[in-house]
Amino acid sequence: MSLLVVGSVAFDAIETPFGKTDKILGGAGTFIALTSSYFVRPVNVVSVVGNDFRTADIDMMKSYGIDTTGLQIKADGKTFFWSGKYHNDMNSRDTLITELNVLGDFDPIIPAEYNDCQYLMLGNLSPDVQRLVIERLPNRPKLIAMDTMNFWMDIAMDSLVQTISMVDALIINDGEARQLTGEYALIKAARKILAMGPKTVVIKKGEHGALLFQGEEVFFVPALLLEEVFDPTGAGDTFAGGFMSYIAKTDNPSFENMKQAVIYGSAMASFCVEKFGVEGLLGLEQSQIEERYAAFRKLVAL
Amino acid sequence: MSLLVVGSVAFDAIETPFGKTDKILGGAGTFIALTSSYFVRPVNVVSVVGNDFRTADIDMMKSYGIDTTGLQIKADGKTFFWSGKYHNDMNSRDTLITELNVLGDFDPIIPAEYNDCQYLMLGNLSPDVQRLVIERLPNRPKLIAMDTMNFWMDIAMDSLVQTISMVDALIINDGEARQLTGEYALIKAARKILAMGPKTVVIKKGEHGALLFQGEEVFFVPALLLEEVFDPTGAGDTFAGGFMSYIAKTDNPSFENMKQAVIYGSAMASFCVEKFGVEGLLGLEQSQIEERYAAFRKLVAL
Repeated sequence: MSLLVVGSVAFDAIETPFGKTDKILGGAGTFIALTSSYFVRPVNVVSVVGNDFRTADIDMMKSYGIDTTGLQIKADGKTFFWSGKYHNDMNSRDTLITELNVLGDFDPIIPAEYNDCQYLMLGNLSPDVQRLVIERLPNRPKLIAMDTMNFWMDIAMDSLVQTISMVDALIINDGEARQLTGEYALIKAARKILAMGPKTVVIKKGEHGALLFQGEEVFFVPALLLEEVFDPTGAGDTFAGGFMSYIAKTDNPSFENMKQAVIYGSAMASFCVEKFGVEGLLGLEQSQIEERYAAFRKLVAL
Repeated sequence: MSLLVVGSVAFDAIETPFGKTDKILGGAGTFIALTSSYFVRPVNVVSVVGNDFRTADIDMMKSYGIDTTGLQIKADGKTFFWSGKYHNDMNSRDTLITELNVLGDFDPIIPAEYNDCQYLMLGNLSPDVQRLVIERLPNRPKLIAMDTMNFWMDIAMDSLVQTISMVDALIINDGEARQLTGEYALIKAARKILAMGPKTVVIKKGEHGALLFQGEEVFFVPALLLEEVFDPTGAGDTFAGGFMSYIAKTDNPSFENMKQAVIYGSAMASFCVEKFGVEGLLGLEQSQIEERYAAFRKLVAL
């Protein structure tokens, strides 16, 4: 079923203990869309890039069934650029550079042919922009999910809370859930978020797995035990992409099916962190994804 | 089947964000033995206390089927005392006081009636003392498991490595596994520990669950989502006690049965942290333990 992804398409420069990159393709929208391409095609994308964006990257995205009609290319601006450095344990990072560029005044224009959107994934963006997308869609999608980050809690909490109240599912990490609710225990944090509006909350715990909450129900998916985490950039976006696109593919937003979706989200994230940038998400075979799904199940199977 | 627990019986004074205690009953041996009493009785204990130890505590332990024949009471010394303070997130703590007292020159004398020991759980103690216990047993138990801590890695690494090479199962936490092996990725750390001798490694990740390794096999048990972690003291010992005594009860040290054992260990640890000291381990009904076991399974059930 039709999936619309709204999120940044960007350049990242990344340094990890394993090496460093120049400006490579990145951005939440890119990770979400590429991941989603393994479950549904086309993947419709609304985003914005600048005059420095590469044709080769657009061609690559198109080759993965990503529809770029909604990707605005601004002749008078540069692409959003983020640079970061990971510490030795890969669990913390320093942001070295953030240049918003064309993302600073992003107006999310939705092409008419995306109006039938049934599944909407709002990647981490200003909550004002996220809300605008919801308001601009002529019909309510079957499921709207959003990601966000601590930055918006610091500078735009009221707007963020308003946007959260309008979505069906919030997907955030553990630190953000704690900051958003003031609760350390994740079961309490989840309950407070559910009371803010969303029927579903997914809390990502990085190398410690992810939790899915709905009403009083909880489901947990561990993280795979990887030999090397090469670059964690985009893992959370990849998780969200796998989650949402699996639901779109199966056209089934039930809690039971969301359990499967968080496993697929985790499986895709495990590919993501094995290489720099989006590289781990390229050229995967369906059989590799199914093998990894099976590995997740085996980890907890009696 | 007969279970022997060797570990400290001590006094703890604990401060958490929820309150503080005077000297209360603690010690790895105490937590392990009380937990084990829900699975096998009698629980044989080899330990040492001083002249300040309370008859009421010994009586309580006896009432839980703990055989205290091997509990030496030193008239000329005081009981091992530890005092610690937990930080707000309960994941880190400061040790305020460590008084080894009678534990400083502990000679683990094994009563003749414990000689038939089939399952041996060595709680965190000097690796010299742990090794002495193994050497003093006339027959090799079916399964020997040991816990340890970073302290022994700092001051007695050679002795520790020697003791580890003599046991069947090492049960340690994630930070200790990393320190012991110099590997950050737990799958690599586990592999290195397996190469040191033990056939089985259990890595405890606190609020993030626990991992069971044997050969190329891995099993993961999540931690329950508790509303409050009141006092984490003894949770790791309780986990080890539940793990080992479940195996002793079922008299089955196979990998498949160890999977069940780590779930029971986690279930018991979840009771432990809900109250101060050993309080959470007192007066449990078998049905409560089974309910919690079921909650663990539900968390990952499709």
